[in-house]
Amino acid sequence: MQNTIELDVRYYETDGQGVVHHANYFKYFEVARVEMLKAMGHDYADLERDGVFLVVHSVGCKFMRPARFGDTLRIVTEVVKATMARIEHRYDVFVGSYQVAQGQSVIACIDRDGNIRRMPECLAPEE
Amino acid sequence: MQNTIELDVRYYETDGQGVVHHANYFKYFEVARVEMLKAMGHDYADLERDGVFLVVHSVGCKFMRPARFGDTLRIVTEVVKATMARIEHRYDVFVGSYQVAQGQSVIACIDRDGNIRRMPECLAPEE
Amino acid sequence: MQNTIELDVRYYETDGQGVVHHANYFKYFEVARVEMLKAMGHDYADLERDGVFLVVHSVGCKFMRPARFGDTLRIVTEVVKATMARIEHRYDVFVGSYQVAQGQSVIACIDRDGNIRRMPECLAPEE
Amino acid sequence: MQNTIELDVRYYETDGQGVVHHANYFKYFEVARVEMLKAMGHDYADLERDGVFLVVHSVGCKFMRPARFGDTLRIVTEVVKATMARIEHRYDVFVGSYQVAQGQSVIACIDRDGNIRRMPECLAPEE
Repeated sequence: MQNTIELDVRYYETDGQGVVHHANYFKYFEVARVEMLKAMGHDYADLERDGVFLVVHSVGCKFMRPARFGDTLRIVTEVVKATMARIEHRYDVFVGSYQVAQGQSVIACIDRDGNIRRMPECLAPEE
Repeated sequence: MQNTIELDVRYYETDGQGVVHHANYFKYFEVARVEMLKAMGHDYADLERDGVFLVVHSVGCKFMRPARFGDTLRIVTEVVKATMARIEHRYDVFVGSYQVAQGQSVIACIDRDGNIRRMPECLAPEE
Repeated sequence: MQNTIELDVRYYETDGQGVVHHANYFKYFEVARVEMLKAMGHDYADLERDGVFLVVHSVGCKFMRPARFGDTLRIVTEVVKATMARIEHRYDVFVGSYQVAQGQSVIACIDRDGNIRRMPECLAPEE
Repeated sequence: MQNTIELDVRYYETDGQGVVHHANYFKYFEVARVEMLKAMGHDYADLERDGVFLVVHSVGCKFMRPARFGDTLRIVTEVVKATMARIEHRYDVFVGSYQVAQGQSVIACIDRDGNIRRMPECLAPEE
């Protein structure tokens, strides 16, 4: 499963070095996950209303080149592994033909009280 | 009532022009309000646990000079007016002897369901 | 002159009250200004490369209703006044048929050294 | 080499789940690096003025427990490895006696033109 989105870099996302501040990539990845859900026919706001809260277990990112204001980011998101407990995503971020970053994350699922629960079926279709 | 805090500019708060992005001043003002509460012996986290939620009705800011990474901001917060319905604050932000910004805000108080409620007495002591 | 954009609320833009944090509206307004420029055929990244830096002189916002994750914001931006020294914008933000916020800003123009300069003609067409 | 700082969670750093949004940890780590430099007698603003720009090559973080508004984060930063090309840090984040997150980063050094350069001696004292 794979989904691609495009995001224009916003001016306030750049820092004093004139490039996108690295912490923002994790915000882009979150947008990419939400959009991937949407492409699968699901709405994360609805999931939360139903008591399904996705939480980030771990994230990481390698930065290859700087991205700047004026750049359009193309983010390719892929589900690398999905179990009833966790979903692993991989993110490849490009500006034009250059890769600027590669990230990954593991998300888990909790209920309204913060207890770990099984991924809803819609999110872990393979099992 | 007046309270002064000092905050070091954080690197990620600067933008592509190498100065603090203007939206961050409203975050500084929020920190200043929380610290002012604390100086008055109150803890905003406790207030929320008691069902008292402060919401911003309006804010504004005039920017006189840029602030940069490496600068320490001195923020003087003053309660300009406090009624059972609203509290007005004024914020004067300095770097050294120069004023860099002047802001103001009006906050109101809602309950857990989002309905407007009277300010708790601890926050509106004059009436 | 008027321009309308739509922005989906991003999850990380919400705060502990489950609504869009008020400081983010000033980031939305910045995106709205950049998109308005684009609609006029100009690219802010190019302007900066040409030594034209737009800086915020003052901003303000009144918040009428909360916006939440899952909401799409419709931001109507209007140039209220444009002189060689300053441009005033007004922003009306809607979710569906409800207005959630109304903001305004005054921007000025500086050169690479931080000195005030005349607005480039492309931005102040009336004079 | 190790340095410990304390940071109060700021309200705007929490998200719709009422906990610190995960992307903010990378901002905390940046503050921790700057403070570690300061504890070593160096000022990152001065380094940039001298043409030494530190850039993040990669970062990662594992999240063990949520942190909330009202919590004070204790961040223990350690230099795991320092060469002329890169410095690796490890960050352990605690609230009271509980660990909430563990992160790591690799930073490199570039000059004003964006070219990789040797770490300044003050930052890579072992070699």
